[in-house]
Amino acid sequence: MQDPFFFDLGFARLDLQREDRTGVPEIVWGEGKTIPQLSAIVRRMTEKSSLILVSRLDEQKGASLLAEFPAGSYHAQARLFSLDCRSGKKTAGRGKIAVLAAGTSDIPVAEEAAVTTARLGNEVERIYDVGIAGLHRLLAELPRIREASVLIVIAGMEGALPSVVAGLVGRPIVAVPTSIGYGTGLGGIAALLTMLNSCAPGVTVVNIDNGIGAAVAAHMINQ
Amino acid sequence: MQDPFFFDLGFARLDLQREDRTGVPEIVWGEGKTIPQLSAIVRRMTEKSSLILVSRLDEQKGASLLAEFPAGSYHAQARLFSLDCRSGKKTAGRGKIAVLAAGTSDIPVAEEAAVTTARLGNEVERIYDVGIAGLHRLLAELPRIREASVLIVIAGMEGALPSVVAGLVGRPIVAVPTSIGYGTGLGGIAALLTMLNSCAPGVTVVNIDNGIGAAVAAHMINQ
Amino acid sequence: MQDPFFFDLGFARLDLQREDRTGVPEIVWGEGKTIPQLSAIVRRMTEKSSLILVSRLDEQKGASLLAEFPAGSYHAQARLFSLDCRSGKKTAGRGKIAVLAAGTSDIPVAEEAAVTTARLGNEVERIYDVGIAGLHRLLAELPRIREASVLIVIAGMEGALPSVVAGLVGRPIVAVPTSIGYGTGLGGIAALLTMLNSCAPGVTVVNIDNGIGAAVAAHMINQ
Amino acid sequence: MQDPFFFDLGFARLDLQREDRTGVPEIVWGEGKTIPQLSAIVRRMTEKSSLILVSRLDEQKGASLLAEFPAGSYHAQARLFSLDCRSGKKTAGRGKIAVLAAGTSDIPVAEEAAVTTARLGNEVERIYDVGIAGLHRLLAELPRIREASVLIVIAGMEGALPSVVAGLVGRPIVAVPTSIGYGTGLGGIAALLTMLNSCAPGVTVVNIDNGIGAAVAAHMINQ
Amino acid sequence: MQDPFFFDLGFARLDLQREDRTGVPEIVWGEGKTIPQLSAIVRRMTEKSSLILVSRLDEQKGASLLAEFPAGSYHAQARLFSLDCRSGKKTAGRGKIAVLAAGTSDIPVAEEAAVTTARLGNEVERIYDVGIAGLHRLLAELPRIREASVLIVIAGMEGALPSVVAGLVGRPIVAVPTSIGYGTGLGGIAALLTMLNSCAPGVTVVNIDNGIGAAVAAHMINQ
Amino acid sequence: MQDPFFFDLGFARLDLQREDRTGVPEIVWGEGKTIPQLSAIVRRMTEKSSLILVSRLDEQKGASLLAEFPAGSYHAQARLFSLDCRSGKKTAGRGKIAVLAAGTSDIPVAEEAAVTTARLGNEVERIYDVGIAGLHRLLAELPRIREASVLIVIAGMEGALPSVVAGLVGRPIVAVPTSIGYGTGLGGIAALLTMLNSCAPGVTVVNIDNGIGAAVAAHMINQ
Amino acid sequence: MQDPFFFDLGFARLDLQREDRTGVPEIVWGEGKTIPQLSAIVRRMTEKSSLILVSRLDEQKGASLLAEFPAGSYHAQARLFSLDCRSGKKTAGRGKIAVLAAGTSDIPVAEEAAVTTARLGNEVERIYDVGIAGLHRLLAELPRIREASVLIVIAGMEGALPSVVAGLVGRPIVAVPTSIGYGTGLGGIAALLTMLNSCAPGVTVVNIDNGIGAAVAAHMINQ
Amino acid sequence: MQDPFFFDLGFARLDLQREDRTGVPEIVWGEGKTIPQLSAIVRRMTEKSSLILVSRLDEQKGASLLAEFPAGSYHAQARLFSLDCRSGKKTAGRGKIAVLAAGTSDIPVAEEAAVTTARLGNEVERIYDVGIAGLHRLLAELPRIREASVLIVIAGMEGALPSVVAGLVGRPIVAVPTSIGYGTGLGGIAALLTMLNSCAPGVTVVNIDNGIGAAVAAHMINQ
Repeated sequence: MQDPFFFDLGFARLDLQREDRTGVPEIVWGEGKTIPQLSAIVRRMTEKSSLILVSRLDEQKGASLLAEFPAGSYHAQARLFSLDCRSGKKTAGRGKIAVLAAGTSDIPVAEEAAVTTARLGNEVERIYDVGIAGLHRLLAELPRIREASVLIVIAGMEGALPSVVAGLVGRPIVAVPTSIGYGTGLGGIAALLTMLNSCAPGVTVVNIDNGIGAAVAAHMINQ
Repeated sequence: MQDPFFFDLGFARLDLQREDRTGVPEIVWGEGKTIPQLSAIVRRMTEKSSLILVSRLDEQKGASLLAEFPAGSYHAQARLFSLDCRSGKKTAGRGKIAVLAAGTSDIPVAEEAAVTTARLGNEVERIYDVGIAGLHRLLAELPRIREASVLIVIAGMEGALPSVVAGLVGRPIVAVPTSIGYGTGLGGIAALLTMLNSCAPGVTVVNIDNGIGAAVAAHMINQ
Repeated sequence: MQDPFFFDLGFARLDLQREDRTGVPEIVWGEGKTIPQLSAIVRRMTEKSSLILVSRLDEQKGASLLAEFPAGSYHAQARLFSLDCRSGKKTAGRGKIAVLAAGTSDIPVAEEAAVTTARLGNEVERIYDVGIAGLHRLLAELPRIREASVLIVIAGMEGALPSVVAGLVGRPIVAVPTSIGYGTGLGGIAALLTMLNSCAPGVTVVNIDNGIGAAVAAHMINQ
Repeated sequence: MQDPFFFDLGFARLDLQREDRTGVPEIVWGEGKTIPQLSAIVRRMTEKSSLILVSRLDEQKGASLLAEFPAGSYHAQARLFSLDCRSGKKTAGRGKIAVLAAGTSDIPVAEEAAVTTARLGNEVERIYDVGIAGLHRLLAELPRIREASVLIVIAGMEGALPSVVAGLVGRPIVAVPTSIGYGTGLGGIAALLTMLNSCAPGVTVVNIDNGIGAAVAAHMINQ
Repeated sequence: MQDPFFFDLGFARLDLQREDRTGVPEIVWGEGKTIPQLSAIVRRMTEKSSLILVSRLDEQKGASLLAEFPAGSYHAQARLFSLDCRSGKKTAGRGKIAVLAAGTSDIPVAEEAAVTTARLGNEVERIYDVGIAGLHRLLAELPRIREASVLIVIAGMEGALPSVVAGLVGRPIVAVPTSIGYGTGLGGIAALLTMLNSCAPGVTVVNIDNGIGAAVAAHMINQ
Repeated sequence: MQDPFFFDLGFARLDLQREDRTGVPEIVWGEGKTIPQLSAIVRRMTEKSSLILVSRLDEQKGASLLAEFPAGSYHAQARLFSLDCRSGKKTAGRGKIAVLAAGTSDIPVAEEAAVTTARLGNEVERIYDVGIAGLHRLLAELPRIREASVLIVIAGMEGALPSVVAGLVGRPIVAVPTSIGYGTGLGGIAALLTMLNSCAPGVTVVNIDNGIGAAVAAHMINQ
Repeated sequence: MQDPFFFDLGFARLDLQREDRTGVPEIVWGEGKTIPQLSAIVRRMTEKSSLILVSRLDEQKGASLLAEFPAGSYHAQARLFSLDCRSGKKTAGRGKIAVLAAGTSDIPVAEEAAVTTARLGNEVERIYDVGIAGLHRLLAELPRIREASVLIVIAGMEGALPSVVAGLVGRPIVAVPTSIGYGTGLGGIAALLTMLNSCAPGVTVVNIDNGIGAAVAAHMINQ
Repeated sequence: MQDPFFFDLGFARLDLQREDRTGVPEIVWGEGKTIPQLSAIVRRMTEKSSLILVSRLDEQKGASLLAEFPAGSYHAQARLFSLDCRSGKKTAGRGKIAVLAAGTSDIPVAEEAAVTTARLGNEVERIYDVGIAGLHRLLAELPRIREASVLIVIAGMEGALPSVVAGLVGRPIVAVPTSIGYGTGLGGIAALLTMLNSCAPGVTVVNIDNGIGAAVAAHMINQ
């Protein structure tokens, strides 16, 4: 029997009006999509979108997209493919966005946030491995942190870094709990609860491992 | 026996350097403090702070503070006492902050956010009772929403308002889940999870009923 | 040692009276059953049942059943095998059943619901990719939605689609939360809580990913 | 200081278009509202609405409304006030709606559902105290249950009644878990999980103690 | 470097006094042990124990033990190896133990309970596939159920079978929730909560999938 | 308006056949019932039932029932009213039932179990304050414990007493977690989980604070 | 009827051997005990115990005990009554025990820990209001913290203080999460999870609000 | 495109000042790191650190490190690599540290704790397989337990061993819940809750399976 339902995955998924409505193009989630599907989506988006981002992409899929679209880039740690369709890349935003990561295990999420933020046109400052177990490393970076206009602060395990930073610096903070890393933090829920209960006001939170969401929020704040 | 430990509640609690470090003075939590304690704290803060805010304050305590500090204000719905110590009140920030509330039950939290934001020097727009059960009310308010530079979006129950707004408008959104209102939303956790899992990027979240936290975050974004 | 217990899986599992009692034949759960077991069950059911449905069936098992029962159909996205034993297929029910899906990731559950509903004799309308992040797509489909007499509304992530639809249309809504898709929605629990706490009355909910349950409920409502 | 925000609780809350959009007028939640607020709301609604229902209303508030609106009724067990503004009450719907309650502790929720359903114009059949601990009582009522076209099935504690009924009767079932009653069922969550995991398809679920939601859903199904 | 710690897994694990203290020999958990470890344990136990039971044993390990101890038995569905070291097998206990299973998916747990109970010397009656979705099958078995002196009642999904049985029969009931089977019952927690909140007194509960625990409890009751 | 529904609480609630079916009369839950309701229920039950038990009864209600039914008894610690309608009280059961309580805070639940067990005709042995923090007290009571044929073991906090007893004695154990007492055991859930995960087989569990359920189960085991 | 069970609360509860076994006398939990019960317990303990501590005691009960035992002390913030029965109070332990509290809301728990520690004979250093929102206050106290040989670190809300301290100082840390204070930290569970997932090794945790437990642990460490 | 971010994993991760600050060198988490990364880290640490410990290391990685650093040791059960860089190994600490494990399944965690403790310079006593199901084994070991100055007590399943030990011995106890082993203890949460709710004061707890954390805490206590 032939199923009478035809579903054009590439086309239907694309919300081509989103960039007009919200200023940010739709970001394609790469996990669970096949290489032909991804290829079709990217091809279609090049006609309309100023910037194409495909997230959660393993190395094999990244290499395939790169082979077909050599003008793009594959960012291995961030698991992101990006393709800039704008003629001239201009740095946008009021100031720099600093991305802080507590530990090395948090770097994949941090890179997802940093690369996305940069591709959206912001100047990005990476400040990694400044977790609270070695507070001197954080305090030494305070001048660079204070230069940024928005902070993305990423931490797993006990997730206390955003609270500490918020007590030191008066900048909007987008906190990202991570599930990656060692320990048994209930898959990031311990860090999430820590961040929601931060005793320093001014911290807002996105979902566990959601580097993309943090990047879009920071980008909007920086406009 | 006399307890040998002397603890000066009013003084010790006050982090008089916070305004210098972060740009926002410490906000006093009124719940669980006695009227004499609150009175001592406010008296002390008038010497150093540009703005005094006391939150979670019932009517009786509010009236007591007002009697002692007649230059202040008590905001009944917001359960806030405010006292402006700056000589000239100046409107700060890049643009307006809009406070959206889904239902009337969410108004106490919304007012806590709105009054705090206003006292911190921002221009505030209140847009209440625009929950998704009557979508036409929200769509009719889109022009006013688009005029703001930051949005605080407050909802209880199923908590879907921030997602809907984020799909329509490209502004930073600070979402606040509420425990108030009717239904059995696990004290706000259902709304919190909805907001964290928002399918529209750009939404960040503060803790349940945390109008103060949302206001400080929105204020920092608006600087 | 010989185990003295003989258990005829095919026979014992079949509740051949259910169609008489409830109007809907037993639907066979395919996951965890071997191909010989499934083959024996289907063969036995052809003697008694007006309609055979086997759910949660991967492609390999589906191909095996199709080879043995060429009059049947395998629906790949829905992971369903169906075999109609009634001489004349008649469209039953008061009206159409519309199946709405918020995102493309929800389509496997949506197809499970749509195919089951159709095989039970209802006219089905598929309206996919109408999630609330792009509200215009939903509003554009309102006329088709209003033509249906029952709605199955499927959403993962923050699960807000049923609430929005219920505020717009006065039809019985069977909401289905999904665990599929991206994000960290606690395996569908975030969407489930959203749907249970819907601020619009008239929404009822089935279990996570339970397309079959939604289809049977919608079919009974449509009788 | 005078708060510049004027909020007309009675007016703003009323979604006077809902009856036109969905066929069911807005139902007012009485808990947490004062008698003057409720009085203003009801007075306003009499101008526009065909039917006024105020839920979660204690006896004192009920008596106050009854004194002001003697044409209305106060239903003590259901904690509902109703006022019929339609000139001629007509029985609507395809058939009867049966409301089943497992135990006497579930009766407040059952009455909330039954009175609401009746006021919306349906013929209602109450079948109470038919919990599964005494199965003979349920089996004896099967003929009356089979006469209904929709079933609302209410149970607390272990919440198994809807599953048992769904195995016996082919009717749409709206299941309502209750928090009332004895035992430690986690405030209704045990019953809710039971109902969501029902092994008999065709059961849909509303939130804990949500008699109103079940009534509106059953009413829509019965149209 | 040589680790100075020597740990004799086979010997240390064996609590050879348990049979004297409690009347039931230690039952060996097979999962996670290698074939040589299991072989050493069984060999050692034959010197002291009247009965050897090894649970959670896959087919390969079962075949290995059977090859070395041909007087034993491997029960595939129950995933148990048993070896009777008593010279004369005598039926013990006051009466029969009936093992009821709601669905075919519950049979592995039911067989673990049934084989264990039988090897401990009790007469066992298996009554499977009597779930509440087809109540007539249960009612037809009531005479056999009433002949037993203890009941083990096993159910997954919504887990309501023990409550229904307890309302019909005055026998001690050991209820076992299962994680196996279809649906999203939170890995058995939904069924567990149902059983703990049973409205019929006399039901006691063991852990999810714990057929061994139920068997030992039923055996002790039957002494 | 007159509500047309008449509900005879006293009559409808009483399952007068339960004693015939299960050997144990229905036990009336006193909490949430008024004194006139309780009085009517007890009066009605004296006509049919061999034994009347009303549980969860505060002192005032207990005194009222005692004034009307002077042949009964009120057990203050157990919060139970009992009235024996059998002409001659006979000790039934195979042996003694021992009720063990870990701490003094567990005594209300222990007394509910002990008095119920005794009124059902069993010989009862109370062994209180034998928690594992002072193991010598438990070991000193081992001879009395071994004399019983069934054990009810009650513990709050960490709930480890049933596991320890099960390792020492080969008797059926009905474990009862309690919410009473000090500490933050999540309202009894910590103790419940401990008991379900007991490393000693033979332990079965009833719900938190469910002394009645444990008593009925132990009584059935003792028949 | 006379209940035949006599239970001497004062006597039975007292584990007079505990001091011999563990070096620490039993500490009496005052909540839920009447003044006559407490009086009897304390009187009895004066015969055997070197130190009497009664915890969780409101002011009225504290005053009653003080009136009867004027040699004792009532510590209002700690809600503790203490009575030293040793002839000569000697300072024990290797060094000082420092008690750190993050905020003023944590002081009742901190005082429970500090007073208990002091009464057990340790030298105690109180360092309060050093939460991480104002890190300079903590850094300023580092010399005093480094002088102690054991640290009790108490924090509510996000509970990050113990992690920060553990990264700075090489001392055994007993962390205590608190439920007191503002915010919605799930009654202390957010802080508890933070402490368990601390990225700095060397932190151990006691239950929420358990100042007594922390004090006894720190005392044992300091021996 | 070339990613402009260079991250030296080996170097950045190393907190070479930690040993100076806290007395314990940083312990490297081996899971998720490649063999070249681990090799670079260890090589670098040999220049500065007195002791190198790499945890959560499977056999293949362990063999690789051993091949490159033949002066080190790989401890298979503990999944630890250790390399002692101090010229003379001296036994430090006040006394012995005893490591107790309830069952054989808990031994990997116990060995992680024991080897770490020993490498940090403490004398270690292993006392395994002393769970409470066979209490005589624990009681027989009391003399060895009393000889230690600190106890690490490890248990899975119901996790009651630390409570029992704390009632018998007056020593600081660091309790470790394990997720390993048989049963359905929610991945160690049942054991964790048991330990936090211990009725015997003096027990402190580390995270599930956190043998390293327990070892560092015990080492600091033993200094």
